[in-house]
Amino acid sequence: MVLVLRRFRSIKSEIRVLGIDDGQFVPRTKGTVDIVGVVYRGGYWFEGVMRTKITIDGFDATEKIAKMIESSPYYRELRVVVLDGVTFAGFNVVDISMLSRIVDLPVMSVVREKPDLEEIRGALKNLPGFEVRWQAMRNAGVLFEVEPRNGENPIYIQTAGILRDDAEKIIRKTSTRSNVPEALRVAHIIASGLAR
Amino acid sequence: MVLVLRRFRSIKSEIRVLGIDDGQFVPRTKGTVDIVGVVYRGGYWFEGVMRTKITIDGFDATEKIAKMIESSPYYRELRVVVLDGVTFAGFNVVDISMLSRIVDLPVMSVVREKPDLEEIRGALKNLPGFEVRWQAMRNAGVLFEVEPRNGENPIYIQTAGILRDDAEKIIRKTSTRSNVPEALRVAHIIASGLAR
Repeated sequence: MVLVLRRFRSIKSEIRVLGIDDGQFVPRTKGTVDIVGVVYRGGYWFEGVMRTKITIDGFDATEKIAKMIESSPYYRELRVVVLDGVTFAGFNVVDISMLSRIVDLPVMSVVREKPDLEEIRGALKNLPGFEVRWQAMRNAGVLFEVEPRNGENPIYIQTAGILRDDAEKIIRKTSTRSNVPEALRVAHIIASGLAR
Repeated sequence: MVLVLRRFRSIKSEIRVLGIDDGQFVPRTKGTVDIVGVVYRGGYWFEGVMRTKITIDGFDATEKIAKMIESSPYYRELRVVVLDGVTFAGFNVVDISMLSRIVDLPVMSVVREKPDLEEIRGALKNLPGFEVRWQAMRNAGVLFEVEPRNGENPIYIQTAGILRDDAEKIIRKTSTRSNVPEALRVAHIIASGLAR
Protein backbone atom coordinates (compact mmCIF):
# COMPACT_ATOMS: atom_id res chain seq x y z
CA MET A 1 0.00 0.00 0.00
CA VAL A 2 1.39 3.38 -0.99
CA LEU A 3 0.60 6.27 1.31
CA VAL A 4 0.87 9.74 -0.12
CA LEU A 5 1.96 12.19 2.52
CA ARG A 6 1.01 15.74 1.86
CA ARG A 7 3.36 18.30 3.37
CA PHE A 8 1.73 21.67 4.11
CA ARG A 9 3.86 24.67 3.13
CA SER A 10 1.94 26.79 5.56
CA ILE A 11 -1.33 26.34 7.39
CA LYS A 12 -3.63 29.25 6.69
CA SER A 13 -5.78 30.51 9.54
CA GLU A 14 -8.84 30.04 7.32
CA ILE A 15 -7.93 26.50 6.18
CA ARG A 16 -11.08 24.62 5.08
CA VAL A 17 -11.67 21.73 7.52
CA LEU A 18 -14.42 19.13 7.16
CA GLY A 19 -15.53 17.63 10.50
CA ILE A 20 -17.59 14.42 10.41
CA ASP A 21 -19.71 12.77 13.11
CA ASP A 22 -22.71 10.46 13.35
CA GLY A 23 -26.10 10.86 15.00
CA GLN A 24 -27.31 8.86 17.94
CA PHE A 25 -29.25 5.66 17.48
CA VAL A 26 -30.54 2.75 19.49
CA PRO A 27 -27.74 0.13 19.71
CA ARG A 28 -28.41 -3.34 18.30
CA THR A 29 -31.16 -2.09 16.01
CA LYS A 30 -31.16 -2.33 12.23
CA GLY A 31 -31.33 0.49 9.76
CA THR A 32 -29.26 3.54 8.91
CA VAL A 33 -27.76 6.43 10.82
CA ASP A 34 -27.21 9.98 9.59
CA ILE A 35 -23.65 11.12 9.09
CA VAL A 36 -23.14 14.88 9.17
CA GLY A 37 -20.18 16.75 7.70
CA VAL A 38 -19.53 20.38 8.60
CA VAL A 39 -17.15 22.69 6.75
CA TYR A 40 -15.40 25.42 8.71
CA ARG A 41 -12.96 28.03 7.57
CA GLY A 42 -10.39 27.63 10.30
CA GLY A 43 -11.67 27.90 13.84
CA TYR A 44 -14.32 30.59 13.43
CA TRP A 45 -16.47 30.49 10.32
CA PHE A 46 -19.20 27.99 9.55
CA GLU A 47 -19.25 27.48 5.81
CA GLY A 48 -21.33 24.45 4.90
CA VAL A 49 -22.96 21.19 5.75
CA MET A 50 -23.36 17.82 4.04
CA ARG A 51 -25.08 14.59 4.95
CA THR A 52 -25.22 10.90 4.13
CA LYS A 53 -26.61 7.73 5.67
CA ILE A 54 -24.70 4.57 6.61
CA THR A 55 -25.80 1.17 7.80
CA ILE A 56 -25.76 0.33 11.51
CA ASP A 57 -22.86 -2.12 12.09
CA GLY A 58 -22.41 -2.25 8.31
CA PHE A 59 -19.41 -1.96 6.01
CA ASP A 60 -20.26 1.11 3.92
CA ALA A 61 -18.88 3.98 6.04
CA THR A 62 -15.69 4.55 4.02
CA GLU A 63 -17.44 4.47 0.65
CA LYS A 64 -20.47 6.54 1.68
CA ILE A 65 -18.36 9.21 3.37
CA ALA A 66 -16.06 9.39 0.33
CA LYS A 67 -19.07 9.87 -1.95
CA MET A 68 -20.55 12.51 0.36
CA ILE A 69 -17.30 14.48 0.24
CA GLU A 70 -16.74 14.16 -3.51
CA SER A 71 -20.28 15.16 -4.41
CA SER A 72 -20.36 18.20 -2.13
CA PRO A 73 -19.95 21.73 -3.51
CA TYR A 74 -17.16 22.31 -0.98
CA TYR A 75 -14.94 19.46 -2.15
CA ARG A 76 -12.41 21.53 -4.09
CA GLU A 77 -11.86 23.95 -1.22
CA LEU A 78 -11.30 21.31 1.45
CA ARG A 79 -7.78 20.78 2.78
CA VAL A 80 -8.29 18.21 5.54
CA VAL A 81 -10.94 15.83 6.89
CA VAL A 82 -11.35 15.26 10.64
CA LEU A 83 -13.39 12.31 11.92
CA ASP A 84 -14.78 11.65 15.39
CA GLY A 85 -12.96 8.35 15.83
CA VAL A 86 -13.05 5.65 13.17
CA THR A 87 -16.20 3.72 14.16
CA PHE A 88 -19.55 5.15 13.10
CA ALA A 89 -23.11 3.82 13.44
CA GLY A 90 -21.92 1.17 15.84
CA PHE A 91 -19.01 -0.72 14.31
CA ASN A 92 -19.13 0.51 10.72
CA VAL A 93 -15.39 1.23 10.57
CA VAL A 94 -13.89 3.97 8.39
CA ASP A 95 -10.58 2.97 6.85
CA ILE A 96 -8.95 6.41 7.03
CA SER A 97 -6.06 5.33 4.87
CA MET A 98 -8.43 4.24 2.10
CA LEU A 99 -10.63 7.31 2.57
CA SER A 100 -7.59 9.57 2.24
CA ARG A 101 -6.60 7.89 -1.02
CA ILE A 102 -10.12 7.98 -2.51
CA VAL A 103 -10.79 11.66 -1.82
CA ASP A 104 -7.12 12.66 -2.18
CA LEU A 105 -7.11 14.60 1.08
CA PRO A 106 -5.41 14.19 4.45
CA VAL A 107 -7.67 12.49 7.00
CA MET A 108 -7.38 12.53 10.80
CA SER A 109 -9.34 10.65 13.38
CA VAL A 110 -9.67 12.44 16.72
CA VAL A 111 -10.72 10.91 20.05
CA ARG A 112 -10.78 12.38 23.53
CA GLU A 113 -9.95 9.16 25.33
CA LYS A 114 -7.27 6.64 24.56
CA PRO A 115 -9.10 3.71 22.97
CA ASP A 116 -8.67 0.25 24.48
CA LEU A 117 -7.83 -1.74 21.35
CA GLU A 118 -8.15 -5.12 23.03
CA GLU A 119 -11.65 -4.24 24.20
CA ILE A 120 -12.61 -3.10 20.69
CA ARG A 121 -11.11 -6.25 19.19
CA GLY A 122 -13.28 -8.30 21.55
CA ALA A 123 -16.43 -6.41 20.55
CA LEU A 124 -15.64 -6.76 16.84
CA LYS A 125 -15.32 -10.52 17.28
CA ASN A 126 -19.04 -10.70 18.06
CA LEU A 127 -19.91 -9.24 14.67
CA PRO A 128 -19.78 -10.70 11.17
CA GLY A 129 -16.80 -9.62 9.06
CA PHE A 130 -14.35 -9.41 11.95
CA GLU A 131 -11.26 -9.48 9.71
CA VAL A 132 -12.47 -6.62 7.49
CA ARG A 133 -13.35 -4.40 10.43
CA TRP A 134 -10.17 -5.17 12.33
CA GLN A 135 -8.03 -4.47 9.26
CA ALA A 136 -9.71 -1.07 8.85
CA MET A 137 -8.99 -0.32 12.52
CA ARG A 138 -5.35 -1.28 12.04
CA ASN A 139 -5.05 0.82 8.89
CA ALA A 140 -5.70 3.87 11.05
CA GLY A 141 -2.10 3.47 12.18
CA VAL A 142 -0.20 4.86 15.15
CA LEU A 143 -2.04 6.80 17.85
CA PHE A 144 -0.45 10.15 18.72
CA GLU A 145 -1.17 12.31 21.74
CA VAL A 146 -1.73 16.02 20.98
CA GLU A 147 -1.62 18.81 23.54
CA PRO A 148 -4.24 21.41 22.58
CA ARG A 149 -3.20 25.06 22.70
CA ASN A 150 -5.65 26.12 25.36
CA GLY A 151 -4.42 23.93 28.20
CA GLU A 152 -7.37 21.55 27.98
CA ASN A 153 -7.07 17.78 28.14
CA PRO A 154 -4.93 16.11 25.50
CA ILE A 155 -6.58 14.36 22.58
CA TYR A 156 -5.45 11.37 20.56
CA ILE A 157 -5.19 11.28 16.79
CA GLN A 158 -4.53 8.82 13.98
CA THR A 159 -3.65 10.20 10.58
CA ALA A 160 -3.49 9.30 6.90
CA GLY A 161 -1.83 11.36 4.18
CA ILE A 162 -0.47 14.02 6.51
CA LEU A 163 2.63 14.51 8.63
CA ARG A 164 2.15 14.33 12.37
CA ASP A 165 3.57 17.81 12.80
CA ASP A 166 1.16 19.36 10.29
CA ALA A 167 -1.79 17.50 11.84
CA GLU A 168 -0.93 18.90 15.27
CA LYS A 169 -0.60 22.43 13.90
CA ILE A 170 -4.02 22.20 12.22
CA ILE A 171 -5.62 20.95 15.41
CA ARG A 172 -4.13 23.70 17.50
CA LYS A 173 -5.11 26.38 14.97
CA THR A 174 -8.73 25.28 14.57
CA SER A 175 -9.65 24.16 18.11
CA THR A 176 -10.92 27.58 19.17
CA ARG A 177 -13.74 26.65 21.49
CA SER A 178 -12.82 23.20 22.82
CA ASN A 179 -9.97 20.72 22.49
CA VAL A 180 -11.08 19.53 19.02
CA PRO A 181 -11.32 21.40 15.70
CA GLU A 182 -14.40 23.63 15.55
CA ALA A 183 -15.71 21.77 12.46
CA LEU A 184 -15.80 18.54 14.49
CA ARG A 185 -17.34 20.12 17.60
CA VAL A 186 -20.16 21.56 15.48
CA ALA A 187 -20.64 18.37 13.39
CA HIS A 188 -21.21 16.55 16.68
CA ILE A 189 -23.82 19.07 17.85
CA ILE A 190 -25.71 18.98 14.55
CA ALA A 191 -25.62 15.19 14.15
CA SER A 192 -26.87 14.72 17.73
CA GLY A 193 -29.40 17.54 17.53
CA LEU A 194 -31.00 16.37 14.31
CA ALA A 195 -31.23 12.78 15.52
CA ARG A 196 -33.28 13.79 18.54
CA MET B 1 -53.39 43.49 21.87
CA VAL B 2 -50.83 44.15 24.56
CA LEU B 3 -47.23 44.13 23.41
CA VAL B 4 -44.60 43.63 26.05
CA LEU B 5 -41.48 45.53 25.11
CA ARG B 6 -38.35 44.19 26.67
CA ARG B 7 -35.68 46.80 27.22
CA PHE B 8 -32.15 45.42 27.27
CA ARG B 9 -29.95 46.85 30.05
CA SER B 10 -26.89 45.90 28.06
CA ILE B 11 -26.30 43.60 25.13
CA LYS B 12 -23.64 41.04 25.97
CA SER B 13 -21.23 40.07 23.24
CA GLU B 14 -22.16 36.43 23.81
CA ILE B 15 -25.94 37.00 23.78
CA ARG B 16 -27.76 33.76 22.84
CA VAL B 17 -29.46 34.29 19.48
CA LEU B 18 -31.73 31.75 17.78
CA GLY B 19 -31.76 32.05 13.97
CA ILE B 20 -34.57 30.28 12.07
CA ASP B 21 -34.89 29.42 8.39
CA ASP B 22 -36.64 26.86 6.20
CA GLY B 23 -35.32 24.31 3.72
CA GLN B 24 -35.95 24.41 0.00
CA PHE B 25 -38.90 22.58 -1.51
CA VAL B 26 -40.70 22.28 -4.79
CA PRO B 27 -43.31 25.09 -4.96
CA ARG B 28 -46.97 24.12 -5.33
CA THR B 29 -46.39 20.64 -3.91
CA LYS B 30 -48.01 19.22 -0.80
CA GLY B 31 -46.32 18.00 2.34
CA THR B 32 -44.00 19.46 4.95
CA VAL B 33 -40.78 21.43 4.97
CA ASP B 34 -38.00 21.29 7.56
CA ILE B 35 -37.48 24.35 9.72
CA VAL B 36 -34.03 24.64 11.27
CA GLY B 37 -33.14 26.73 14.30
CA VAL B 38 -29.51 27.49 15.14
CA VAL B 39 -28.31 28.88 18.47
CA TYR B 40 -25.24 31.11 18.49
CA ARG B 41 -23.49 32.81 21.35
CA GLY B 42 -23.13 36.25 19.80
CA GLY B 43 -21.45 36.36 16.42
CA TYR B 44 -18.85 33.62 16.83
CA TRP B 45 -19.87 30.47 18.65
CA PHE B 46 -22.18 27.79 17.35
CA GLU B 47 -24.03 26.36 20.31
CA GLY B 48 -26.93 24.23 19.17
CA VAL B 49 -29.48 23.22 16.62
CA MET B 50 -33.18 22.37 16.64
CA ARG B 51 -35.67 21.28 14.04
CA THR B 52 -39.36 21.02 13.29
CA LYS B 53 -41.60 20.50 10.26
CA ILE B 54 -44.35 22.76 8.98
CA THR B 55 -46.97 22.36 6.28
CA ILE B 56 -46.38 23.84 2.83
CA ASP B 57 -48.70 26.88 2.48
CA GLY B 58 -50.27 25.85 5.79
CA PHE B 59 -51.15 27.75 8.96
CA ASP B 60 -48.98 26.02 11.58
CA ALA B 61 -45.69 27.97 11.38
CA THR B 62 -46.22 30.12 14.49
CA GLU B 63 -47.37 27.23 16.66
CA LYS B 64 -44.76 24.73 15.46
CA ILE B 65 -41.89 27.17 15.81
CA ALA B 66 -43.07 28.14 19.30
CA LYS B 67 -43.15 24.47 20.31
CA MET B 68 -39.72 23.84 18.81
CA ILE B 69 -38.28 26.71 20.85
CA GLU B 70 -40.01 25.84 24.11
CA SER B 71 -39.06 22.16 23.96
CA SER B 72 -35.40 22.79 23.14
CA PRO B 73 -32.68 22.46 25.79
CA TYR B 74 -31.50 25.98 24.89
CA TYR B 75 -34.79 27.73 25.62
CA ARG B 76 -33.84 29.21 28.99
CA GLU B 77 -30.62 30.69 27.65
CA LEU B 78 -32.14 32.36 24.59
CA ARG B 79 -32.48 36.15 24.58
CA VAL B 80 -33.78 36.85 21.07
CA VAL B 81 -35.23 35.03 18.04
CA VAL B 82 -34.33 36.10 14.48
CA LEU B 83 -36.39 34.84 11.52
CA ASP B 84 -35.57 34.91 7.82
CA GLY B 85 -38.65 36.90 6.86
CA VAL B 86 -42.12 35.95 8.07
CA THR B 87 -43.23 33.52 5.36
CA PHE B 88 -41.95 29.94 5.57
CA ALA B 89 -42.68 26.85 3.48
CA GLY B 90 -44.38 28.99 0.88
CA PHE B 91 -46.98 31.20 2.54
CA ASN B 92 -47.14 29.67 5.99
CA VAL B 93 -46.92 33.03 7.77
CA VAL B 94 -45.34 33.46 11.21
CA ASP B 95 -47.17 35.98 13.35
CA ILE B 96 -44.08 37.39 15.10
CA SER B 97 -46.16 39.31 17.58
CA MET B 98 -47.95 36.12 18.64
CA LEU B 99 -44.72 34.11 18.62
CA SER B 100 -43.06 36.68 20.86
CA ARG B 101 -45.90 36.46 23.35
CA ILE B 102 -46.02 32.64 23.36
CA VAL B 103 -42.30 32.09 23.91
CA ASP B 104 -41.88 35.31 25.95
CA LEU B 105 -38.88 36.45 23.91
CA PRO B 106 -38.19 39.31 21.51
CA VAL B 107 -38.60 38.26 17.88
CA MET B 108 -37.18 39.96 14.78
CA SER B 109 -37.78 39.21 11.14
CA VAL B 110 -34.88 40.09 8.87
CA VAL B 111 -34.95 40.45 5.06
CA ARG B 112 -32.30 41.63 2.63
CA GLU B 113 -34.70 43.25 0.21
CA LYS B 114 -37.60 45.57 0.90
CA PRO B 115 -40.70 43.40 0.47
CA ASP B 116 -43.40 44.54 -1.96
CA LEU B 117 -46.47 44.24 0.27
CA GLU B 118 -48.95 44.72 -2.55
CA GLU B 119 -47.36 41.88 -4.50
CA ILE B 120 -47.48 39.63 -1.43
CA ARG B 121 -51.10 40.59 -0.81
CA GLY B 122 -51.91 39.59 -4.39
CA ALA B 123 -50.22 36.21 -3.97
CA LEU B 124 -51.99 35.55 -0.67
CA LYS B 125 -55.34 36.19 -2.34
CA ASN B 126 -54.83 33.06 -4.43
CA LEU B 127 -54.66 30.90 -1.32
CA PRO B 128 -57.30 29.78 1.16
CA GLY B 129 -57.36 31.68 4.44
CA PHE B 130 -56.35 35.02 2.95
CA GLU B 131 -57.55 37.05 5.95
CA VAL B 132 -55.61 34.96 8.48
CA ARG B 133 -52.38 35.13 6.50
CA TRP B 134 -52.70 38.84 5.78
CA GLN B 135 -53.42 39.62 9.42
CA ALA B 136 -50.25 37.74 10.44
CA MET B 137 -48.27 39.76 7.87
CA ARG B 138 -49.71 42.99 9.26
CA ASN B 139 -48.96 41.97 12.83
CA ALA B 140 -45.26 42.04 11.90
CA GLY B 141 -45.60 45.83 12.11
CA VAL B 142 -43.40 48.63 10.83
CA LEU B 143 -40.43 47.85 8.59
CA PHE B 144 -37.16 49.48 9.68
CA GLU B 145 -33.98 49.83 7.67
CA VAL B 146 -30.79 48.85 9.50
CA GLU B 147 -27.27 49.79 8.43
CA PRO B 148 -24.97 46.88 9.28
CA ARG B 149 -21.69 47.72 10.97
CA ASN B 150 -19.45 46.44 8.21
CA GLY B 151 -20.54 48.75 5.40
CA GLU B 152 -22.51 46.03 3.61
CA ASN B 153 -25.97 46.53 2.15
CA PRO B 154 -28.70 47.60 4.56
CA ILE B 155 -31.25 45.05 5.75
CA TYR B 156 -34.88 45.49 6.76
CA ILE B 157 -36.37 44.32 10.03
CA GLN B 158 -39.72 43.98 11.72
CA THR B 159 -39.80 43.45 15.44
CA ALA B 160 -42.00 42.25 18.29
CA GLY B 161 -41.28 42.64 21.98
CA ILE B 162 -38.10 44.66 21.53
CA LEU B 163 -37.18 48.31 21.06
CA ARG B 164 -35.90 49.26 17.63
CA ASP B 165 -32.69 50.59 19.10
CA ASP B 166 -31.94 47.33 20.93
CA ALA B 167 -32.78 45.28 17.83
CA GLU B 168 -30.31 47.31 15.76
CA LYS B 169 -27.60 46.91 18.39
CA ILE B 170 -28.09 43.13 18.47
CA ILE B 171 -27.90 42.91 14.69
CA ARG B 172 -24.72 44.96 14.51
CA LYS B 173 -23.10 42.96 17.31
CA THR B 174 -23.90 39.51 15.91
CA SER B 175 -23.53 40.06 12.14
CA THR B 176 -19.86 39.10 12.08
CA ARG B 177 -19.58 37.42 8.69
CA SER B 178 -22.37 38.96 6.60
CA ASN B 179 -25.07 41.60 7.01
CA VAL B 180 -27.33 39.31 9.08
CA PRO B 181 -26.80 37.73 12.53
CA GLU B 182 -24.49 34.73 12.36
CA ALA B 183 -27.20 32.42 13.79
CA LEU B 184 -29.43 33.28 10.84
CA ARG B 185 -26.68 32.94 8.21
CA VAL B 186 -25.85 29.46 9.51
CA ALA B 187 -29.51 28.38 9.91
CA HIS B 188 -29.94 29.19 6.22
CA ILE B 189 -26.91 27.09 5.21
CA ILE B 190 -28.01 24.10 7.30
CA ALA B 191 -31.67 24.23 6.23
CA SER B 192 -30.67 24.45 2.55
CA GLY B 193 -27.87 21.89 2.85
CA LEU B 194 -29.98 19.25 4.56
CA ALA B 195 -32.84 19.66 2.11
CA ARG B 196 -30.58 18.89 -0.85
